[in-house]
Amino acid sequence: MPPAFRTMYTDMEGEAMGDLRLVKDFQVGEGFFGRYEKLVQEVVLPYQERALNDQIEGAEKSHCIENFRMAAEKLKTGHCDGEFYGMVFQDSDVAKWLEGAAYSLAQNPDEDLEKRCDEIIELIGAAQQKDGYLNTYFTVKEPDKRWTNLHEAHELYCAGHMIEAAVAYAECTGKGRLLEIMCDMADHIYRHFIEEGAEGYPGHPEIELALMRLYRSTKEERYKELALHFINVRGVDPDYYKKEMEKNPWRVWGNNPDDKEYAQNYAPVRQQDKAVGHAVRAVYLYTGMADAAMETGDTELANACKTLWDNITQHRMYVTGAIGSAYEGEAFTKDDHLPNDTAYAETCAAIGLIFFSNKMLYLAHEGKYADVVERALYNCVLAGMQLDGTKFFYVNPLEALPGISGEAQTHKHALPVRPKWFACACCPPNVARLLGSLAEYTWHVIPGTLFSNLFVAGTLDVSDRFGGRVVLKTDYPYDNKLEYRFVPQEGREMMEVPLAIRIPAWSKETKICLNGKTADCEIRDGYAYMRGAYTAEDVITVEFDMAVRRVYTSNRVSANTGRTALQRGPLIYCAEGVDNENDVLSLSLKRDGEVKVSEYLADELFGIKKLYAEGWRETVNEELYSFKRQEAKPCTITFVPYYTWGNRGLNQMRVWIPERD
Amino acid sequence: MPPAFRTMYTDMEGEAMGDLRLVKDFQVGEGFFGRYEKLVQEVVLPYQERALNDQIEGAEKSHCIENFRMAAEKLKTGHCDGEFYGMVFQDSDVAKWLEGAAYSLAQNPDEDLEKRCDEIIELIGAAQQKDGYLNTYFTVKEPDKRWTNLHEAHELYCAGHMIEAAVAYAECTGKGRLLEIMCDMADHIYRHFIEEGAEGYPGHPEIELALMRLYRSTKEERYKELALHFINVRGVDPDYYKKEMEKNPWRVWGNNPDDKEYAQNYAPVRQQDKAVGHAVRAVYLYTGMADAAMETGDTELANACKTLWDNITQHRMYVTGAIGSAYEGEAFTKDDHLPNDTAYAETCAAIGLIFFSNKMLYLAHEGKYADVVERALYNCVLAGMQLDGTKFFYVNPLEALPGISGEAQTHKHALPVRPKWFACACCPPNVARLLGSLAEYTWHVIPGTLFSNLFVAGTLDVSDRFGGRVVLKTDYPYDNKLEYRFVPQEGREMMEVPLAIRIPAWSKETKICLNGKTADCEIRDGYAYMRGAYTAEDVITVEFDMAVRRVYTSNRVSANTGRTALQRGPLIYCAEGVDNENDVLSLSLKRDGEVKVSEYLADELFGIKKLYAEGWRETVNEELYSFKRQEAKPCTITFVPYYTWGNRGLNQMRVWIPERD
Repeated sequence: MPPAFRTMYTDMEGEAMGDLRLVKDFQVGEGFFGRYEKLVQEVVLPYQERALNDQIEGAEKSHCIENFRMAAEKLKTGHCDGEFYGMVFQDSDVAKWLEGAAYSLAQNPDEDLEKRCDEIIELIGAAQQKDGYLNTYFTVKEPDKRWTNLHEAHELYCAGHMIEAAVAYAECTGKGRLLEIMCDMADHIYRHFIEEGAEGYPGHPEIELALMRLYRSTKEERYKELALHFINVRGVDPDYYKKEMEKNPWRVWGNNPDDKEYAQNYAPVRQQDKAVGHAVRAVYLYTGMADAAMETGDTELANACKTLWDNITQHRMYVTGAIGSAYEGEAFTKDDHLPNDTAYAETCAAIGLIFFSNKMLYLAHEGKYADVVERALYNCVLAGMQLDGTKFFYVNPLEALPGISGEAQTHKHALPVRPKWFACACCPPNVARLLGSLAEYTWHVIPGTLFSNLFVAGTLDVSDRFGGRVVLKTDYPYDNKLEYRFVPQEGREMMEVPLAIRIPAWSKETKICLNGKTADCEIRDGYAYMRGAYTAEDVITVEFDMAVRRVYTSNRVSANTGRTALQRGPLIYCAEGVDNENDVLSLSLKRDGEVKVSEYLADELFGIKKLYAEGWRETVNEELYSFKRQEAKPCTITFVPYYTWGNRGLNQMRVWIPERD
Repeated sequence: MPPAFRTMYTDMEGEAMGDLRLVKDFQVGEGFFGRYEKLVQEVVLPYQERALNDQIEGAEKSHCIENFRMAAEKLKTGHCDGEFYGMVFQDSDVAKWLEGAAYSLAQNPDEDLEKRCDEIIELIGAAQQKDGYLNTYFTVKEPDKRWTNLHEAHELYCAGHMIEAAVAYAECTGKGRLLEIMCDMADHIYRHFIEEGAEGYPGHPEIELALMRLYRSTKEERYKELALHFINVRGVDPDYYKKEMEKNPWRVWGNNPDDKEYAQNYAPVRQQDKAVGHAVRAVYLYTGMADAAMETGDTELANACKTLWDNITQHRMYVTGAIGSAYEGEAFTKDDHLPNDTAYAETCAAIGLIFFSNKMLYLAHEGKYADVVERALYNCVLAGMQLDGTKFFYVNPLEALPGISGEAQTHKHALPVRPKWFACACCPPNVARLLGSLAEYTWHVIPGTLFSNLFVAGTLDVSDRFGGRVVLKTDYPYDNKLEYRFVPQEGREMMEVPLAIRIPAWSKETKICLNGKTADCEIRDGYAYMRGAYTAEDVITVEFDMAVRRVYTSNRVSANTGRTALQRGPLIYCAEGVDNENDVLSLSLKRDGEVKVSEYLADELFGIKKLYAEGWRETVNEELYSFKRQEAKPCTITFVPYYTWGNRGLNQMRVWIPERD
């Protein structure tokens, strides 16, 4: 870890300004994410709430709430009617929805919604056993098998998600009931694994990052100790899952206990140097590790995180910020293996990469980490959701070929249009909770610096520290200008705000002005550290260079040799058939050709700018193989932002386009 | 089917000159395939014989011969020690080896080998049940389950291979014992399926083509009837396998009875228009269909074959003649889906495509069918075997990437070097029997025309028809010249030989001379029909245009857009790392650059010509994604024939190379 190794929380002199506080303190304003915030509030969360309550006609039932009811009934009366239904981790859907709802309540108070949340929380409390244990699968279905199959049974995973929900709900609404419930559960876990010395570590990481959040919110050292415990024991005995299975041979999924990559237990975490296995598990684990490293100042752990982050971003990440090259195991594969059409590239994994990168940002304050947050957010994650919020992709390929995508044996997972809902409902609520907590990625603060990371229009309330608010106005990502203003709290004088503004790697030249004149700032680690500090009268304006850039992949990656992709600002573009005579495979970009940027098209795809690039369209040989080179005629290729693809029916899509003179 | 619809056998005026007769009548001469013939005789067959007898140290045992011994013992004494071992189709390994041995004996008489074959045949006879039934799996292990699982249990498949062996052994050695055994088995099958009316059709086609061979060899009409029966009932009830499983729920593999593509039962065969499912099964089925169509003059069946062949060769075939794009199901996928690195492209499937294409050639006498035989033979099939005959590929990708190939989840099957032997030993003996019977693909005859299809140096004995031999001298495929001479039988005068010489599609201009002067011939359907007929004094010389050609794939195929491959004569070339600074991914071919052909390099890779192409080598960006275009410097790219790849250790290989100005 470079000398810049600083922690956000432990080095704080005054009151810690934790990540979650930001959600309450930041109000999303009008602009790109304003629309998304409304969408989550008005469409995504209500739809998911109905799903959790089995009120969606024609969809596979969730049974989530019903599972909690049954568990509560059983605990009260000794038995319950009906059977547990759903995945072994079904509880986590309720947790993720509650977390998303909490963020929404912080932005848009809603008594009805809050009441319904409180009722669900009471139900959760009623489903908790006397010793603090909470999990409806085990309470209803397998009461004798608690903690006997860490490899597959997701108990710690579910606990982790409910802990996250509890912390979020407490911070956003000020209500501590769920936090109490989950502290009881965390205490139960502590007794089992620490005091009673139970062996093992979770098959699906999540508890680690959740316990770190719980620790930060409650200041209870045992939760940090427990988080570190799960991090530290992982992979020390790589055969733990095997031994566990030999001892208790009941199975949930039939996971292979000899596969030590799938759940990242091939070595102790500080010795891990390749991002392997199930991509979501991996980045959730690394998020917990990075958070723990930041909290404890554990340089060895921080270095492992850095190595793993470098491995991902230099060898195992798509240009959209997606990760996980293979459907099988929903997993990372090998360095420089990034197929476009068969990518797994799960929405949840990109979200996890955002979690991980953001912790790395908090750890090292280097802009490259926020660059990856931005890459994954604006491209893969947003593509995961239909623009109207009603449908979702789990899988986000970089090339879609109707007739093959979603149909060939190798492409069953890579659907060319978003389906309506999933039996395994992990990605949609994950999108909701990420979009609800954008503040965490937009800003962070350490003593002496307020970092502006993403450029989400809105108002950050820093009254307690600086006596006012920082207002960012922008039409980013389509417009290249930012405007920061400082608004004092009524009756107070605003103090100086020490701002550091991220300079994205794609901006060749960035103009920063203070009150219309070139500002004095130091460019370091991907940030413009404004010299001096700014107050109520000041306006800082930033102009990025949003010229269209051509992206090239290292030739180590076979799929993209000879090809290029177009990027403008943080947005990766793609060519879709619907704009290009239903055939994007015959297109190539002219090597030094012009690329024009359209006006802002407010009525298309909820508001975009298109790109029109000089290119070639080749004739299509009818013969499969031919000795005749296809003739190429000049043409204009139309590109739309990748996150908007698949919103206009079934058609071809391609990000990486061959380039020729 | 065009007006040229003629059948090879039924239209014959004189004695039929069947396919198998050719193996005995054709002596491979010195040249490219002379070396292969020796290799099969001296290395491949002896190794396989030892394997069948469990004499290979360190290899998984075959147990093939032992299974027959046990079956014989059980039939004699009522019981046997030990257990059946191996795949349910293990018997077919013995069959394929015997067929290969038969061809070898036809070319190179070998008393010892023939004696050992005769002993094995006696053992096979002793393992046959009184009612003619022959299958060691069922005789030893599951005596009560005969004919209850056609979907998975491969009884008809094993019977088919042993019938092929029987016909081959009879024709090549004149000994009829195995033919008697297999006629008894065929009679048993006839009684069961025709006389007793048992339902169903085989999960793995093979019996159809085998029964056609048996019919042709024995002239027994019932065998043709039985072959047609299996062809005609297939897919009429697409749910047959499902019903069979409900009736007798024992399983071998757990094949999905709802998958109606895997075993080509989605529709009656005459209505099938897409080549689907397990590629070997598909082409074995189509081979039987084409043979039956030829035999019966069934135009509807012939048209279905034509449609399926067109579908394969225009949408589902690699440039190497390989087929089967997906590992899962070892199967065809969808039109125009031809990934290079994850291809299944099984050696056996390319061999099956040769079988099918050759039957189509016999049916229609159009050169395009022989073009595909040649494409698959010289490229995919030969690549299936290490040049020294000791190792084999099942899977023949068109791109190999060490670190990914054979290692990533999606590439476990696509090994970058040939492994030593396989537990499932299907491909190696298939290569042996194909190379042993090249005569069938080299020549065919109908009244009035002797077709020269492949250009394998050697001597065809046509004494019974024309009073002598036709001798082809050539160093094809590296040299472009053919020389045909006509040698009368001693004491006879040679009659006129009506020759039609195939003009491969890759030869832009072909010079054909008779005794040094431009010959009079009619070019039609890919053949030069020599006008007049030629006798003992005449020399026909052919000079093909073997200029290097650039091959382009239709833009319908995503994987190859912007790329080209090099071909010279019938050989597809590839770039390997070992010749190109261990990095072929940074190479691109100069659009109109020169390609030089090396001298014949007798000491390299058992004799090849290399290609040296003008190209570009790009710098490799260390960054995974970069806004900087890689710089390109002129370079010379070295290419070797695809069939020789992977013979010089682990390294990159690529067939399709980006092309740029």
